[in-house]
Amino acid sequence: MKKKAVRAVLAGCMAMSVMMTPMAFAAEDSAKSSEAGTTSSRNLIVLIGDGMGPAQVTAARNYLMYNKNVDHLTLDSIYVGQATTYADRGEDGGAVVSGVVTDSASAGTAFATGHKTYNAAISVSNEDVSKPFASVIEAATAAGKATGLVTTARITHATPAVYGSHVRSRDNENAIASQYLDSGIDVLLGGGSANFLSKDDKGKRSDKSIISDFEDKGYEYVTNRAGLMQVGDSDKVLGLFGSSHVAYVPDRTAETPSLAEMTDAALNILSKDDKGFAVMIEGGRIDHASHANDFPSTVQEVLDFDAAVKVALEFAKADGNTSIVITADHETGGLSLSRDNIYELNLDLWDQQKNSSEFIASKLKSATTIAEVKSIVSSNTWIKDLSDEEAEQILAGDGSSYAQEGAYNAVISKRLLVGWSGHGHSAVDVGVWAYGPIADLVKGQIDNTRVATASAEVLGLDLAGTSAALQAKYLYPKFKVARNGEILYPAKALGEALGASVKWNGANRTATISQGSTVISVQLDSGAVTLNGNSAALTSNVDNGKLYLPLEAFNSLTGLKLTWDSLSERIVKS
Amino acid sequence: MKKKAVRAVLAGCMAMSVMMTPMAFAAEDSAKSSEAGTTSSRNLIVLIGDGMGPAQVTAARNYLMYNKNVDHLTLDSIYVGQATTYADRGEDGGAVVSGVVTDSASAGTAFATGHKTYNAAISVSNEDVSKPFASVIEAATAAGKATGLVTTARITHATPAVYGSHVRSRDNENAIASQYLDSGIDVLLGGGSANFLSKDDKGKRSDKSIISDFEDKGYEYVTNRAGLMQVGDSDKVLGLFGSSHVAYVPDRTAETPSLAEMTDAALNILSKDDKGFAVMIEGGRIDHASHANDFPSTVQEVLDFDAAVKVALEFAKADGNTSIVITADHETGGLSLSRDNIYELNLDLWDQQKNSSEFIASKLKSATTIAEVKSIVSSNTWIKDLSDEEAEQILAGDGSSYAQEGAYNAVISKRLLVGWSGHGHSAVDVGVWAYGPIADLVKGQIDNTRVATASAEVLGLDLAGTSAALQAKYLYPKFKVARNGEILYPAKALGEALGASVKWNGANRTATISQGSTVISVQLDSGAVTLNGNSAALTSNVDNGKLYLPLEAFNSLTGLKLTWDSLSERIVKS
Repeated sequence: MKKKAVRAVLAGCMAMSVMMTPMAFAAEDSAKSSEAGTTSSRNLIVLIGDGMGPAQVTAARNYLMYNKNVDHLTLDSIYVGQATTYADRGEDGGAVVSGVVTDSASAGTAFATGHKTYNAAISVSNEDVSKPFASVIEAATAAGKATGLVTTARITHATPAVYGSHVRSRDNENAIASQYLDSGIDVLLGGGSANFLSKDDKGKRSDKSIISDFEDKGYEYVTNRAGLMQVGDSDKVLGLFGSSHVAYVPDRTAETPSLAEMTDAALNILSKDDKGFAVMIEGGRIDHASHANDFPSTVQEVLDFDAAVKVALEFAKADGNTSIVITADHETGGLSLSRDNIYELNLDLWDQQKNSSEFIASKLKSATTIAEVKSIVSSNTWIKDLSDEEAEQILAGDGSSYAQEGAYNAVISKRLLVGWSGHGHSAVDVGVWAYGPIADLVKGQIDNTRVATASAEVLGLDLAGTSAALQAKYLYPKFKVARNGEILYPAKALGEALGASVKWNGANRTATISQGSTVISVQLDSGAVTLNGNSAALTSNVDNGKLYLPLEAFNSLTGLKLTWDSLSERIVKS
Repeated sequence: MKKKAVRAVLAGCMAMSVMMTPMAFAAEDSAKSSEAGTTSSRNLIVLIGDGMGPAQVTAARNYLMYNKNVDHLTLDSIYVGQATTYADRGEDGGAVVSGVVTDSASAGTAFATGHKTYNAAISVSNEDVSKPFASVIEAATAAGKATGLVTTARITHATPAVYGSHVRSRDNENAIASQYLDSGIDVLLGGGSANFLSKDDKGKRSDKSIISDFEDKGYEYVTNRAGLMQVGDSDKVLGLFGSSHVAYVPDRTAETPSLAEMTDAALNILSKDDKGFAVMIEGGRIDHASHANDFPSTVQEVLDFDAAVKVALEFAKADGNTSIVITADHETGGLSLSRDNIYELNLDLWDQQKNSSEFIASKLKSATTIAEVKSIVSSNTWIKDLSDEEAEQILAGDGSSYAQEGAYNAVISKRLLVGWSGHGHSAVDVGVWAYGPIADLVKGQIDNTRVATASAEVLGLDLAGTSAALQAKYLYPKFKVARNGEILYPAKALGEALGASVKWNGANRTATISQGSTVISVQLDSGAVTLNGNSAALTSNVDNGKLYLPLEAFNSLTGLKLTWDSLSERIVKS
């Protein structure tokens, strides 16, 4: 049962007007909302600026101040605190499996589910046999709310993925797309159609295209801005605006919706649900631009995100029953706003690059001479005096996988007076912005896991219960593929995860796994397996001191009918 | 009239104990205090972490988390927002006089007085004839409160200077020391005795030593930790712990007080005043360590600052009538916590450098061979495998004024997995932390000027009135020294600042400055000056299109008895 909720008509979302002095706007909005004393919201909007560290935010504001005569970001009006972002290093046989500097998957798992994990994990625990953790979006779906994921990255990229799927590795994007089909999430808007399409359909899937499966489940499928604008009474929409990520702001055509437009469309659809909604909206390409060290595109992507924040904030103010929480997963690039001991920023040049560096790099690829590099740079930027040395630097590449693009951005950044420490992430705390009842729960210095638990609190969701339901169904083991193609699992870790007891007898070099009256023994030198004392035709394998067994062994042991979901690389328990 | 105020005995200030989970401590303190609904405080403690940007704070917390099993900084419990720091670029005949990336003088003027100015300005306006702006400490002194300045930098360095003096250039530290003598500030603790001592006394002053002048005014003078600990019933103390800055944390001896110990001593003295107090406490060497790109010392200096915050916070909680506000003037060094695309930090090495890089550089100065460099690095750090390439890099220096120290720190930082964008400041927003009634006034996204106005509000101070009193007395003009040693002032700017009318006649190339019935005319080609039509023996000089005249001209014009304070480079009006 859904009915149209009262919804204010939102003003043009890209327009920003000159407002109060910096002093006057400080956190007024969040302060007002918290004074009301309410502690719950019907709706929740989570906005994530991927890679949007403190310097990225300051840069975007500086751009508005000095180039647009606008003295603050929409974000600034609801700043409430900052969050730590560190990943769980974890231990794998004594080895650190993850650095403390987080990736989007680990950070996303933290603010979506409330649990720290290793880098690359999509909402699963940091164990040899990982458990799935439920996200706020999954718990909201379970509670009957409408839910959505919106991003300018691929919809199967880490940040949306942690809210609607579970895999050991973020790279398994085909599985993430398939899991969305069963997720119950109503609105999916972003890039990444390739992970929904078979190789025959110019996609990346070996199995089949799954767009029609979404349509069979009632999703309206749209592929461009016009299609998105014409979504009518649909309750479910799959919008994929590109094969991979949605185009960078400076590279967009009339076909490409802005994040603000996607946000507006999503809120229109989701707000029809009378049980309320929860949606995650990501500015996914701030991170990509900063990875490449493309400073001008970084600034434009932050502004694209801020415009979406404006749409969300205006919705929440008109609606009166919506909490907003905003953060970043991490900083990207080690950006600093100054360099080389110069106390100035060349702000007037910050928007004088016509396209993203990704676009310019596609031209540079074919350049083989200094003259060609100069011509490409001249036609795409303000730089008419590129030196031979700079051109040579660009031709040579920067030694990273960003190659010529990295070197081009090094030249640009030096002229813009900004610096980077590399192409990876950094560990600096990230901002937290909030509006509505959630603001009081996430203010001050927090850890990013608090974003998830606060989200569940204001919506009255049962995160632990939703996790328990998932964990009753799925396990995510490390595994290995034998030479014959058989899938083998770490016997001790999986046995213990299934409640079995695992013992090692050093004298006869035999491992014993038992549950109830069932006993499996493996003599490690011969590889011989016995089940309750009788020889069993089960493969065994020792790798790096670890015993591996096939799923059949664990079925015999537990009496369960465990099956292997080879796409999602998970054991299905029921 | 002073009496001993109730004051809790503070526990050992350097000790930190493991506390709550990150989630639990979020801004609890500041939230509690603001719930009380009070809007004023008797006492104010301002703490400034010079150069303490977001990455410096995260680094110190990471050090505690991973190396000391302490999960947060004292700072973290009272995080309330962040501040913009930009300088006023200003215009000087069309030229930008200051970059937007602030220095400590400009940022300090903003958070001490509430006014933006140019880089290098110590609480004066960005004009050819600058006006002094009163600081919160000066306004508190005028209101009869006890006041103090505490720092690990020279007491005449920019951050303390903006609170108790006014000069066009921060480098004029002898003038700053002399102005303190007349400032009425009760407690002055820091480094920098050289600016109080004559050259005969191994100081930097050409006039005379002024320590005895302070003693004549009732200040107790102490020069080491033992002296500071033994300050008894003195209401006024001048403590100078070193000729220049107080030693870096890793270089300190038993003679050197920590910032926490200086804070404790200052609060002991100042809290005796029954009208309350205002004090500024600076961690001044976070900035210096970051300028040098000395990461290990940066971390230790932030922790030294955080220990002072702990002393202040415990005082405020026990006292019940004290507001605390904490910020940084800017980030220094463009620090980033990661580099070279590696998602890890080598945290276990962060405290394996025995002294500051400044100390190590003093040894490196005499090194001429790779072997000598290796020996010095080996005996001062964990590095026993310095490569020839690294040693050569250190010998060659980094091309900046930091030379070998800069190159040494580049080698160290690469091994620690942290990056820097240079030796200067950067423009990223800085944190704001607060406790007590002031917390509500500075939360969210603010400009650094709000720290000053909020400080004045909670103490009930009249910043504008105190500024007006200063402006009635002093002007700070640009000036030039003629070949004969005569001081000349910009006629138009100073005339207008004194209320005169200035006109230019292009036909006869004559400038006319008039006030009331008095008229001075200058024919620019001949240089001839007339006063009320009569030839006057006044020097005139045209430099770069600007007319300059001596003070005598302005005295004739206005009837005032303007005099020139050559030490402070200011005109005294009365």
